[in-house]
Amino acid sequence: MAEKITPRDKDYSQWYLDVIKSAKLADHSPVRGCMIIRPNGYALWENMQAGLDGMFKETGHQNAYFPIFIPQSFLAKEAEHVEGFAKECAVVTHSRLMLDDEHGLIPDPDSKLEENLIVRPTSETIIWHTYSRWIQSWRDLPILLNQWANVVRWEMRTRLFLRTMEFLWQEGHTAHATEEEAVEETLTILDVYSKFAEEYMAVPVIRGIKTASERFAGAVDTYCIEALMQDGKSLQAGTSHFLGQNFAKAFDCQFQNKNNELEYVWATSWGVSTRLIGALIMVHSDDKGLVLPPKLAPTQVALIPIYRKDEERVSVLEVASRIESELKAAGIRVFVDDRDAFRPGWKFNEYEVQGVPVRLALGPRDVEGATVEVARRDTGEKTTVNQSDLTAHIQELLETIQQGLFDKALAERESRTTEVDSYDEFKTVLDEKGGFVRMHWDGTAETESQIKEETKATIRCIPLEDYDEDGIDPVSGKPSKGRVYYARAY
Amino acid sequence: MAEKITPRDKDYSQWYLDVIKSAKLADHSPVRGCMIIRPNGYALWENMQAGLDGMFKETGHQNAYFPIFIPQSFLAKEAEHVEGFAKECAVVTHSRLMLDDEHGLIPDPDSKLEENLIVRPTSETIIWHTYSRWIQSWRDLPILLNQWANVVRWEMRTRLFLRTMEFLWQEGHTAHATEEEAVEETLTILDVYSKFAEEYMAVPVIRGIKTASERFAGAVDTYCIEALMQDGKSLQAGTSHFLGQNFAKAFDCQFQNKNNELEYVWATSWGVSTRLIGALIMVHSDDKGLVLPPKLAPTQVALIPIYRKDEERVSVLEVASRIESELKAAGIRVFVDDRDAFRPGWKFNEYEVQGVPVRLALGPRDVEGATVEVARRDTGEKTTVNQSDLTAHIQELLETIQQGLFDKALAERESRTTEVDSYDEFKTVLDEKGGFVRMHWDGTAETESQIKEETKATIRCIPLEDYDEDGIDPVSGKPSKGRVYYARAY
Repeated sequence: MAEKITPRDKDYSQWYLDVIKSAKLADHSPVRGCMIIRPNGYALWENMQAGLDGMFKETGHQNAYFPIFIPQSFLAKEAEHVEGFAKECAVVTHSRLMLDDEHGLIPDPDSKLEENLIVRPTSETIIWHTYSRWIQSWRDLPILLNQWANVVRWEMRTRLFLRTMEFLWQEGHTAHATEEEAVEETLTILDVYSKFAEEYMAVPVIRGIKTASERFAGAVDTYCIEALMQDGKSLQAGTSHFLGQNFAKAFDCQFQNKNNELEYVWATSWGVSTRLIGALIMVHSDDKGLVLPPKLAPTQVALIPIYRKDEERVSVLEVASRIESELKAAGIRVFVDDRDAFRPGWKFNEYEVQGVPVRLALGPRDVEGATVEVARRDTGEKTTVNQSDLTAHIQELLETIQQGLFDKALAERESRTTEVDSYDEFKTVLDEKGGFVRMHWDGTAETESQIKEETKATIRCIPLEDYDEDGIDPVSGKPSKGRVYYARAY
Repeated sequence: MAEKITPRDKDYSQWYLDVIKSAKLADHSPVRGCMIIRPNGYALWENMQAGLDGMFKETGHQNAYFPIFIPQSFLAKEAEHVEGFAKECAVVTHSRLMLDDEHGLIPDPDSKLEENLIVRPTSETIIWHTYSRWIQSWRDLPILLNQWANVVRWEMRTRLFLRTMEFLWQEGHTAHATEEEAVEETLTILDVYSKFAEEYMAVPVIRGIKTASERFAGAVDTYCIEALMQDGKSLQAGTSHFLGQNFAKAFDCQFQNKNNELEYVWATSWGVSTRLIGALIMVHSDDKGLVLPPKLAPTQVALIPIYRKDEERVSVLEVASRIESELKAAGIRVFVDDRDAFRPGWKFNEYEVQGVPVRLALGPRDVEGATVEVARRDTGEKTTVNQSDLTAHIQELLETIQQGLFDKALAERESRTTEVDSYDEFKTVLDEKGGFVRMHWDGTAETESQIKEETKATIRCIPLEDYDEDGIDPVSGKPSKGRVYYARAY
């Protein structure tokens, strides 16, 4: 009946793919590295979009849309940016196919483009070209735009949701009159991302700054949120970049400030992507399949009617339908699965695998006794509830589950965050326990890359909280200003 | 202060572009033929998406996402399809750029793809490839999917919203066990499109079937909705295709039916795009700028506070804020423009140009008398309303405006729909009056193409209503089964 899910402790990577397949979230596509997001996965993305979009709008942002194609020459204008993206971009060179007698369908040589177009890997270049036309004076600032879009980065080793050649994301691009205001924007967005991760996804995150080597190509500072997966690896869940005046200079975007002087515009950019779905799966799910936090679950409650005889069917479905109306009226996303082609056992399994937070079962005896069986997906706990108390019970239960998932993930992260003061201990913890390792760092790229080479662990971030503490980097023996977060990462 | 809008009767094309520019809906981009959708335009698109998406979901559809790239060989599998799209597609041939000493940035020859990828012009091929893996039995049917996506068609003559190289759209792709069910789906969607056009956009549409020459490449039948623009030209606003078994055969998608026989799956596809924004502009707007139907307007009510002295400012803004809360609580999208950097006159003009349906002005005398000045964008009419009656008044007014715009557009279309029985009359009407011309057609491609060549008018559709009436095609003299809709078109 059910497709088998490989247990996490046997093969974590295979478990991840099995959960995605069983829960019908995504599928591989005939184009290597591109994924097909199936309805269950896309509904999850829609809920994530709605949550984030609301927060962007509350903080004064508007949506817009910029072209998918970027002229090749644009990419070259910001030196670090081209360095970062040139090696992984889809290049459009022709605008027509033709039938060739010998080779079949080929790009029509006469349609070769004068300038190649790049499928956007990110949109800073085309947006800053545009901003340079839109911005003349301080009155035109700030510009606070976001776009929901697809982007393409030619990754060689791909993995559903976590790293795909094409992915869906939002990218914010803002323009400001002062450095201070731009930095503040970067941090506002980092707050939005943290809040979304913790309150919607129930995923606790560490907020911090990337080291120079892990920075976005073209940024002055990259802020990030990092989350810990169940296999002890870290995943970068969102980034917010302070771009300084780098792109304004590359695209000659100046404005007249209040003192009538020409000045380059200050910039930020920030994004989260369908990668968040990968994080969601890896933080909460178990060997039975997907586990979803109620706030994001497309279906929060699945009701499964149980009956044998026709007269049972009528009375059970009548009550089911009443319960459905009541829950819907309370704003709960409920689905009554009254399909006769599938048996209750099959349905129980289906909603377990798909991570529906609450399952209700309603049989003839429940109709008689005015009760419902309520089962939690996260703990497996079952209780019998009076129908008259059901809506209030479910409302509370959904909140309990949401909070429970967060608490569990936080406890897991805390138990797997280790402070170490020697390089030997560092290596032992990484190999035996995994998770975040907090160790003093001397601030040099040399030490960072030595550790990366020797242990495959990277500095996930210099944390914004609990950082200032003088110490000694145990690897170099040099002084350090605080402990950073190291981990092996996705 | 205001940018000048060319009057419609002077230069309709320029008027259209001026309205888009003044209302800040879209902008040209550095990539020829691609547009930048600005926040005002994108907010409109978001409202259109919300309306349509709700209707798709009510009719049982789910959203999903398929890759942007299509292997070149896929395009070739359906003969008519490749014929229709090969000449206008963006071809990706390389996956990397490199720095060449002589030529600067060039596609890395070592990254040449084994098989070229096409940026999707539409997704039938990749979706039917996928469906052939998903569908085995009648139990797997129907599949009712939609995706919101960007597509690329390499158009040579482009125009903001109406015809752009990249555009945003939704494309539905459904799979069915029987021909009857697929045809029914095609018509369900045609109903959704008509309802959306008429009830949300306030744009009356003719529902019909395309002739063979105007059919979608690969369809058995293309159903469409056609709308009349103010310059007397028709615009195809949405299409719903019955694809028969063409794509199932091309991608070998068979299923076991209830009699245990293998059968090819029946298909439909359907789409509307950002082109609808072009239609919306061209049906309702006037020489002063954009006119928006309240149901889709991002801002339905703009309130402009008026004051000179500081104490006036305080009392006016206090009342403004109370009105804002009341209107918001009633679900009305209101914006209080309390920016001191702009003067009331500038604001009045701004919201007129941007098509905000209702403008409120609130000054010190209004505060004293507990009144508000209410101005309609569509008719220019101004009234003074008591603050206590305001919310109810506005609710009713928004409905009146919505209906008024539809009625006006319908009257315009009816006055410009002419029945003719001779080819001379046909030509005279086309040249002098424009609009739809209803004339008998003998059903042959010869007559259709002769008329197109001689008059540039095409058969917009064979209407679903008021069609059956025997007659004579005045051009060929042959018998006809009914009058079709001719028009010059976008």
